[in-house]
Amino acid sequence: MFSFSSKTERNAELRQDPITGKWVIISPQRAERPQEFDTRPRRIRHGPCPFCPGNEELTPPATLIKPNVSASPQEPSWKVRVVPNKYPALVDSEDCAIESGIYRGRTGLGVHEVLIETPRHVQGISDLTREEMLDVLEVLMSRLAALKSREHLRYVMVFKNVGPLAGASVEHTHSQIIATPVIPPTIEAELAGTGEFFRGHQSCIYCQIVQYEIAKAVRTVQITPHFLAMCPFAARFPYETWILPRQHNARFSDLERGLWGELIQITKDLIQRIEQTIPGVGYNVILHDAPLHDDVPFYHWHIEILPSTARPAGFEWGSGVHINSVFPEFAARSLREGQAS
Amino acid sequence: MFSFSSKTERNAELRQDPITGKWVIISPQRAERPQEFDTRPRRIRHGPCPFCPGNEELTPPATLIKPNVSASPQEPSWKVRVVPNKYPALVDSEDCAIESGIYRGRTGLGVHEVLIETPRHVQGISDLTREEMLDVLEVLMSRLAALKSREHLRYVMVFKNVGPLAGASVEHTHSQIIATPVIPPTIEAELAGTGEFFRGHQSCIYCQIVQYEIAKAVRTVQITPHFLAMCPFAARFPYETWILPRQHNARFSDLERGLWGELIQITKDLIQRIEQTIPGVGYNVILHDAPLHDDVPFYHWHIEILPSTARPAGFEWGSGVHINSVFPEFAARSLREGQAS
Repeated sequence: MFSFSSKTERNAELRQDPITGKWVIISPQRAERPQEFDTRPRRIRHGPCPFCPGNEELTPPATLIKPNVSASPQEPSWKVRVVPNKYPALVDSEDCAIESGIYRGRTGLGVHEVLIETPRHVQGISDLTREEMLDVLEVLMSRLAALKSREHLRYVMVFKNVGPLAGASVEHTHSQIIATPVIPPTIEAELAGTGEFFRGHQSCIYCQIVQYEIAKAVRTVQITPHFLAMCPFAARFPYETWILPRQHNARFSDLERGLWGELIQITKDLIQRIEQTIPGVGYNVILHDAPLHDDVPFYHWHIEILPSTARPAGFEWGSGVHINSVFPEFAARSLREGQAS
Repeated sequence: MFSFSSKTERNAELRQDPITGKWVIISPQRAERPQEFDTRPRRIRHGPCPFCPGNEELTPPATLIKPNVSASPQEPSWKVRVVPNKYPALVDSEDCAIESGIYRGRTGLGVHEVLIETPRHVQGISDLTREEMLDVLEVLMSRLAALKSREHLRYVMVFKNVGPLAGASVEHTHSQIIATPVIPPTIEAELAGTGEFFRGHQSCIYCQIVQYEIAKAVRTVQITPHFLAMCPFAARFPYETWILPRQHNARFSDLERGLWGELIQITKDLIQRIEQTIPGVGYNVILHDAPLHDDVPFYHWHIEILPSTARPAGFEWGSGVHINSVFPEFAARSLREGQAS
């Protein structure tokens, strides 16, 4: 079973660490990425942009397109395109358990898509217009609904990497969608924590955090009628910021359409504050959502924004403890006041 | 309590995420590092090397020195120096619980030291002689014994970052020692997993892995009479490799002196194999050891070596699931055969 001659001839596998139970994805397709074994610092790929209009044949055929119905013949015919990732972490192969002695895993059943947010070759959230972001949100909601209909998928992770230090290999602004047949450990830990708190207190711990932070006003960055942007008490990264709905809401896709504009505005404002405070910084934006099929009314969806100022090293990998050089109270004040670090 | 005017006037704090229970270290001293907010890729610091002989005043006063007793007046007077980290993650301050509403933490009581492994300005393990590594091991064992006598410290993490991509900011070869008043989550997870396996099977899961891997011989890289170097089944990183003692042994400091030379040899061989397979690669070496004072006979110390080929991005931070582009079976074969990737 484990004899093979090339690193790419096998399908992806999800494997479970027999000691800790943590999952990893072994995905030989990723090794075909142009930069995968370049040991120099990650840079943006050269050559024609695969996400620009006119280069559509450089990506796999689109899964979903939001057309630009009023486009003139000179304009791109689409507003948003969702395409399968050319170097997918998981592929939609047969779901098959792997057992080998003390080890367990399964074949890498899943979905890995790229959401190209605009035909314009721009880099990040601050370059997108409110209208473009509304289109992105609409397309994202429709992908989440489609993936939810697939019973074997248990979780959808939506994220965005901006800048080479944040892991982006294509400059043209895009988000990624990875759907997995297991619930990722980070989300498992949040579900365990929120579930336990709910059983003990009959309330949601994220709701408690929202109330406490708004009352204290030391880690808050921006407050709108329905959302809070704040630096978390135990921030892992300098200037790490979360956006939470102020009203309890377990599932992102239950967000009413009337609030999309407000969510977009606070997100754009926050990214602008981060870019003003740490010029040139890259960042990851990660949606923390409820699992697709589990009934977890005690969960509270939110967005985490992680600026790429620090690189984890031996201590972080060995311990799982992050060292953050900036107090979240200081970070929040800088972001509130637009003060440079 | 949370009003302060600069980001460095407060002591470090250990803070616990109220949802997941995970610890982070908030350490404003780290922000004073020359490169902390350089958003360009990490590079090696310029200027006189703080770890070279003659520059001893550039580090805080040494905690421990192994002198070179037979040095001529032209030679450096020391073989190994242990100094407090100039930019410590934790400082040995008063241990004090922090309570603020729903949040918990404690002041950053701990120790952060640098072990300068040789007076020679060389970069990594493959540049060290066997004799130098024996000196390093002797000094390390003596620091572990000294830190063990301090009851409020619960864990010592020993690690080494080589190369800028692995997080090293000083080129001159050195290891780091961080002692914490809490058991890090990664080690907690290993203790939980080994403890549970032991209760169910009356044996050590790492011992089972060692036996299974030696019998299968697909993920083994090198086998010596008392040690095994192997790529783990659920490797998080391309070419991730572990070194395990073949005989059960919970605690690194219980390793008999007669085996030090053999451990040094397999480590040097392995690093050389990695450097041959991925030229120019950096790496983290991390000792996974038992906690200082807990009785955990079911644990099994080991060393994890993580080559820095991939940078975690949004998916990894959001999910806790690593995507590894190289099957460990392929990595092991390449490392065994010295075959380039």
